[in-house]
Order: sequence, then structure tokens, then C-alpha cells
Amino acid sequence: MTIGSAIRATLAVVVASMLPVAAFAQAAEPLASWNDGPAKSRIVGFVQAVTDKSGKDYVPPADRIAVFDNDGTLWSEQPAYFQLLFAIDRVRAIAPANPRWKTQQPFKAAIEGDMKALAASGEKGLLQLVMVSHAGMAPDEFARVVNDWLATARHPKLKRPYTDLVYQPMLEVLDYLRANGFRTYIVSGGGIEFVRAFSEQRYGIPPEQVIGSSVKTRYEVRDGRPTLVRLPEIDFVNDKAGKPVGIHRFIGKRPIAVFGNSDGDFEMLEWGTSGDGPRLGMIVHHDDGVREYAYDRASHVGRLDRGLDEAAKRGWTIASMKRDWKSIYPP
Amino acid sequence: MTIGSAIRATLAVVVASMLPVAAFAQAAEPLASWNDGPAKSRIVGFVQAVTDKSGKDYVPPADRIAVFDNDGTLWSEQPAYFQLLFAIDRVRAIAPANPRWKTQQPFKAAIEGDMKALAASGEKGLLQLVMVSHAGMAPDEFARVVNDWLATARHPKLKRPYTDLVYQPMLEVLDYLRANGFRTYIVSGGGIEFVRAFSEQRYGIPPEQVIGSSVKTRYEVRDGRPTLVRLPEIDFVNDKAGKPVGIHRFIGKRPIAVFGNSDGDFEMLEWGTSGDGPRLGMIVHHDDGVREYAYDRASHVGRLDRGLDEAAKRGWTIASMKRDWKSIYPP
Repeated sequence: MTIGSAIRATLAVVVASMLPVAAFAQAAEPLASWNDGPAKSRIVGFVQAVTDKSGKDYVPPADRIAVFDNDGTLWSEQPAYFQLLFAIDRVRAIAPANPRWKTQQPFKAAIEGDMKALAASGEKGLLQLVMVSHAGMAPDEFARVVNDWLATARHPKLKRPYTDLVYQPMLEVLDYLRANGFRTYIVSGGGIEFVRAFSEQRYGIPPEQVIGSSVKTRYEVRDGRPTLVRLPEIDFVNDKAGKPVGIHRFIGKRPIAVFGNSDGDFEMLEWGTSGDGPRLGMIVHHDDGVREYAYDRASHVGRLDRGLDEAAKRGWTIASMKRDWKSIYPP
Repeated sequence: MTIGSAIRATLAVVVASMLPVAAFAQAAEPLASWNDGPAKSRIVGFVQAVTDKSGKDYVPPADRIAVFDNDGTLWSEQPAYFQLLFAIDRVRAIAPANPRWKTQQPFKAAIEGDMKALAASGEKGLLQLVMVSHAGMAPDEFARVVNDWLATARHPKLKRPYTDLVYQPMLEVLDYLRANGFRTYIVSGGGIEFVRAFSEQRYGIPPEQVIGSSVKTRYEVRDGRPTLVRLPEIDFVNDKAGKPVGIHRFIGKRPIAVFGNSDGDFEMLEWGTSGDGPRLGMIVHHDDGVREYAYDRASHVGRLDRGLDEAAKRGWTIASMKRDWKSIYPP
């Protein structure tokens, strides 16, 4: 061994021994994927204020409740809500057992992949498709179907599993808030059981902290086995003015931090940030057509119009994906 | 001071200094108000089994979910559900603003204190009274009204505040389970907001762990203030087969321990105890006419009939208030 190779060998050991430390240091730095700027400062400043026991804005842990929209806030939602893409795949899979769907909208459009006709069926048609296409099962069967799909389906443009398309900066916000005594809830317009199927593994959010739209469910004893059966009937639409209602029903308290991305989150932002004491409202703005998608006022999915107009006067912070996020998805 | 009085004085100091220790020792003993017997053994054995990491029945903390009916399980329910007594008082208080109630059942009966006519209006009539009589308010206003009533109203027979009429042995079960990593939920046929008004203070159960019947709620901006308004329309009846549905909606998991007292809890007991692994089902039997009330199969309130017949074959334990409980209410 020459002196040079000895030095290189030693260096290699030293570098290797440093690697885990460096990785740890990066993981330990909160909001590592956020660029310095007003959005990151706002989050950090808010968390410091509500956790400072000697400060006037201190909030006890029991009231540190943060709510997050899911589609477009925690993961992508283009070219269509992922649950809708799941529903289309599911309708196709079970279409042979439902011959009437061949002539019945929105099922016909789903089977034929006619996205224009699907869009024309409107929000109600889409919701109907989503709700009806996965009824008749027990919740645990449904969770299995969702997870089977998540394991195999790929995003049409990005060619990655949908659960890869969660936002790394938002995962860091979830971690950072929880490390500071917050409870983090998902408040989704999507189906509660759909989101629950992956929320714990993907976001660290357990099922009891997921609030969403729901179908009616019936309890029955089937062949001697007590079970819950999902019915093809909408029970609650957890969107727009439904979000504060859903939040109150499940939590019974007003959140102090609200994260959304579309006008479907407007009322939840309005309600959460109008309580007494310190409040954080943040809107993820999809303005990065290179790394993700760029859309707002004119989009059919995740339209953001009123929120953009009123954010400033309501004290809500706009987080720009392009400007504020170092990376979009986890490595 | 004689030697005798000196000894007595010293003894008094010694005894006084021991008192807090003795009180602490009693508080630290789990289930101190339970007599030794099958019911206490069942609870202790179950908790030891599911918390023993090396045992075959170990259950991780995330799945240690225990659900409790409220009326008749955590507090008394005779001569009528306390929420019904609240509703009657409330109907009387706001009757001047609702002149039509004078001729309209079940309101007429409530105003006149005609308990027979009230009973004749059936479960639906009573629920209607309960739901309708406290609509039109925001949830926090409603909580204030409930707490004002709880602070002043007295039980007609026992002449004590209703919140004194919680069961000491059950408070100890709640504490014991929580000390062993359980999350404790209330699953009540009563109104979710009614129970939430006192659950945290009385039972140590926060609002997000209360599941109950609900009225529809609307979000609106009133005079510039975002608010939720309780509507006089039933949204969900969390009783009988509704209890497993409510549990699943809120928690998304099947509980492993279920405590009830009436056939209204039958389906929740059935559902909870039919899952895989160790399960605890327990029915509080009101068989103590001296210290509380004695009723079961023939009672209009908290009828327990099928549960008594099937408890043994389903492996549910009957807790006898007379035999198993040293005391009923907190001292």
C-alpha cells in the first residue's frame, strides 16, 4: 500500500463514517426541501410562536390541530384526481358483471376511456362514478382493492406509482408539525376509505385522522359474519362548505393551521383562520409546469381562483411550487 | 402537655403525613372500586394479555381501541336519558319563542311535563325532541347551554348534579386502559355535541374521541363571521346497527374492547368482539336497586334482553353493579 492509497483508504473510511451523520443532519433539518423565503418563514415562525410557552401566541398541544387537503396539496391531481383514475380502472374491471353500464353514463364513458364525455358528466357524474364503482364491499376488502391498484397502476405522464407522487416538501411539513406537538389531519374531497388505504404508510396519518367524502354504510351479519357493507349511495360530500362541517364532526375543534390548494379548500381556510389567536393558512400554488403542472384559475381539476384573489387580504400565504420547493417528489 | 397528649399529637402528625400516601396508593391501584371477581379478573387479564410483548395475544398500541357506550355505561340513565331531561328543560326555556309547540307533540308533552305522552311519542319522538330543541345554534353556543344546564340542574331522585352521576368503577376502567396504551372512545346513542360538552372534563375523553348521533350542520358566513349552524334535522342515529357504522366512520378500525349496558350496544359488542385476536366485551348490568336502579328486560330506558340471553355464548362478561362494584359514584 502506498502512502497515497493509504490516505485514500483512510479518507474512504472517514467519508463513509460521515455519510450517515450527514444524512441524519439533513433529515433532522426541518423543511429541508423548502427554499428560504416567505412561505418557509411563515411556517417556521408560526410553529415557533405557538410552541413558545412564554409567548403571547402559545397554543397548548391539545389545540395544535393542522388540516391538509389531499389532492393537489399532499400529492398530485393531474391530469385527473387519482381516485377518478382508480374508479375508471375499477369500472372497467367489474364492467362484465354490470352489463347496463354499457349504455349508461358516466359508466359508458369510463369503459370507453372517453374523457371528454366523462368531464361532461360534471362533478356529480364523476363523484357518482367514484362512489358507485366501488360499493358492495366491506371496507377492508375495499382497502385491499385500492392497495392492489396503487401497487400496479402508473401515472400516465410520469410513469411512476401514484404513491410516489406525494410532495416531499409537504411530507416535511407534516413531520415538522408533528415533531412540534401538532396532530395532522387529512381533510379530503376524495373518499375517506380511499385515502385511508394509504395515508398511514405514506403520510404517517392514521385512519382516525382522515376525513373525507363517504358512501352510506350498512352493518349486517352475513353468513354469520358481522360486517360493514359499502352502499352505492353518497352519504357526505366533504368539499367546499362541507369541509368545515366534516372537520367539526370528526374533531370537534377548529384547526389552527390549514393547508389547501384549490377553491374547494376556501371555506376550510376561511373557517380555520378566522378563529382567535395565531392562525396559519397556506395555499400550494401549482405554477411549475416543468417539474409538475401549472394550473389555477382555468383548471377543471383543482381550480384556484377566489383563493388567489383573496389570499393576501385574508393573510393566507401562497406557497409557489416553482419558487419555494427545492424538489417536488421524494428522491 | 401530658405524655399521653404528646403521643396523641405526634400520632396525629404521623397519621396526617401518611394520608396523602395512602390516598395515592389507593388511586394507583387499578380498578380499586371493583370487587375481586370474574368481571375484574376479565378486564385485568385482557389488559395483561394484549400488553405482554412476548405473549401470543400482544396488540400494538395503535390497535388498542376501547369503545364505551355513555348512557347507563359511564353514567346513569334513569329515570330517563339525561339528555332528554336537558331537552325538556330546554324546550320549556325556549317555548315562548315557539308558540306552535303548545299544540304539537312531542313538544306539548315536554312543556306540560307529561312524561306518559312523551313516552308515547316513541323513540323517534324523543330523538326529535332532543335534536330539534337545541338547533339553530353554533356548536360552541350549544356547548355553553349544555354546561350551564349541567351546572345548575339536579337529578330528580338523587338531587345531585348529573355530572356527579358517573360511575366511579368505569372511570377507573378508562384510566386503567389509557395507562396501558389504549385510546378510549365514547360511542353514544346520545347527541355527539351534548356528550362532547363534558366528556373531556368528566371522562378525560377529548372531543375527537366522541362518536354520537348528530343533527345536520351547515357552514355559513353570518354577518361576516364564519360559523357552523346546527339544523333541526337528524343526520345520523348512532344506535344499534348504527354504532358499528359510526365507529368505522370515525376510527376506521375495529375496537378490541367494547363496554355497553343495553341492547342498543348489541351490534357494537358483536362487531367488536368478532374480530381476530383477543377481544373484550362487557355489559354493565343494572341490578342494584338500592344504590342505583335495577332494570333490564322490561325497561323502556336501556332495555337489556338479547344481551343477557346471548352474553355467555358470545363470551361477553356481565358486570353486576351490585356484586362487582364497591361504590357506584365518585365520593
